[in-house]
Amino acid sequence: MLGVLGGMGPLATADFLAKVAAATPATRDQDHIPLIAWSVPQVPERVPAILGDGPSPLPAMLTGVRALRAAGAEAIAIACNTAHYWYDELVEQGGVPILHIADAALLEACRRAPGGRRIGLLATSGTIAAGFYQARFRKEGYATLLPPSSNQDLLHQGIQLVKAGDIAGAAVLAVSVAQNLLEAGADALVVGCTELPLALAGADAVLRARMVDATAALAAASVAWSRGI
Amino acid sequence: MLGVLGGMGPLATADFLAKVAAATPATRDQDHIPLIAWSVPQVPERVPAILGDGPSPLPAMLTGVRALRAAGAEAIAIACNTAHYWYDELVEQGGVPILHIADAALLEACRRAPGGRRIGLLATSGTIAAGFYQARFRKEGYATLLPPSSNQDLLHQGIQLVKAGDIAGAAVLAVSVAQNLLEAGADALVVGCTELPLALAGADAVLRARMVDATAALAAASVAWSRGI
Repeated sequence: MLGVLGGMGPLATADFLAKVAAATPATRDQDHIPLIAWSVPQVPERVPAILGDGPSPLPAMLTGVRALRAAGAEAIAIACNTAHYWYDELVEQGGVPILHIADAALLEACRRAPGGRRIGLLATSGTIAAGFYQARFRKEGYATLLPPSSNQDLLHQGIQLVKAGDIAGAAVLAVSVAQNLLEAGADALVVGCTELPLALAGADAVLRARMVDATAALAAASVAWSRGI
Repeated sequence: MLGVLGGMGPLATADFLAKVAAATPATRDQDHIPLIAWSVPQVPERVPAILGDGPSPLPAMLTGVRALRAAGAEAIAIACNTAHYWYDELVEQGGVPILHIADAALLEACRRAPGGRRIGLLATSGTIAAGFYQARFRKEGYATLLPPSSNQDLLHQGIQLVKAGDIAGAAVLAVSVAQNLLEAGADALVVGCTELPLALAGADAVLRARMVDATAALAAASVAWSRGI
């Protein structure tokens, strides 16, 4: 049984569940993987906590991990990139293995773009400050390209609009930031915030072909884990 | 905390979670409602069990209800219409209140179509045999219109295609059955199977304006319950 630590945000959790189903070879319900999702959006904000301006979400996330473990979860997927800032503490204190979203996204990036290329990272400022994407990219020989700070602000506005249910408004901002990163020389884009694939789902095919969706990559890794492959 | 008994099927569960988020007035994660979703698709098939040709899903569903209760759920929403055949047993043996999807859909139907009208019911043969929609419609002065058996077979094929991830294939079948019901004189359509809104999401606006989505209605009822309104 897979446990999904979600609610950060709730629409991203629904998107993750849909991508788990889409990643599963199935002709009937029973072919799909068993999972339990803890979607409690009252977890304190992750980005301010990382940037030193808010309470830690770790205790609330640990409550979620323990509830999932008590309900039978044998591994956890976290449907939020920024939350992976607390990955080590969650594994250590939660007592259950956690599939790392950046490992899954890196694997997918390697399938798409040969080493030496430049990867644009679309993520929260908390995820960027945490550095777990850049470290993995560096190890595989990729250079990381980040949006300039004005664009990073637009991206945060887009993420907030998804959390408020305004996908169309979010799309305008996210597409523009993504296109700017490609024009600045990115060979591929890692969409490393679980709100952003919702905003970018309607982007044109050329843009979408350059995107590595970390949510979809974690979904594929979760299905592979569940099916033992 | 809301518990979601899901996995029947998994994509319908993801759709329900997305509709809960969409039904919530929110500008940030913390405004959304806390929930935990048990999505274990290994529950035995509901329709054959109702039609006398398969094992009962009740024990597996009770396992889910009890797991949700143990994890803190104070009320349950079941993201599957057919599963409501076992509603009374689930409430009695599960020991936690359950929001009935047909109550939610009826409320929405009443907002849309005055009494005396004919409501077309798009549902599994198990749900139709269970009769809980027809009983509610009758009580409110609606006549129920059902698809002819050839169309009911097409609808089941469409539902199965959603479970297999083929939304485009499902859409062709579901839209055709829905349009036939309208042509046969239905004033409104209750979409009473949680797979079908996924198949009908791309239908034209005229058709969608006549549809009452039971999944969305249950999501709205769940949000109202959670917010105490």
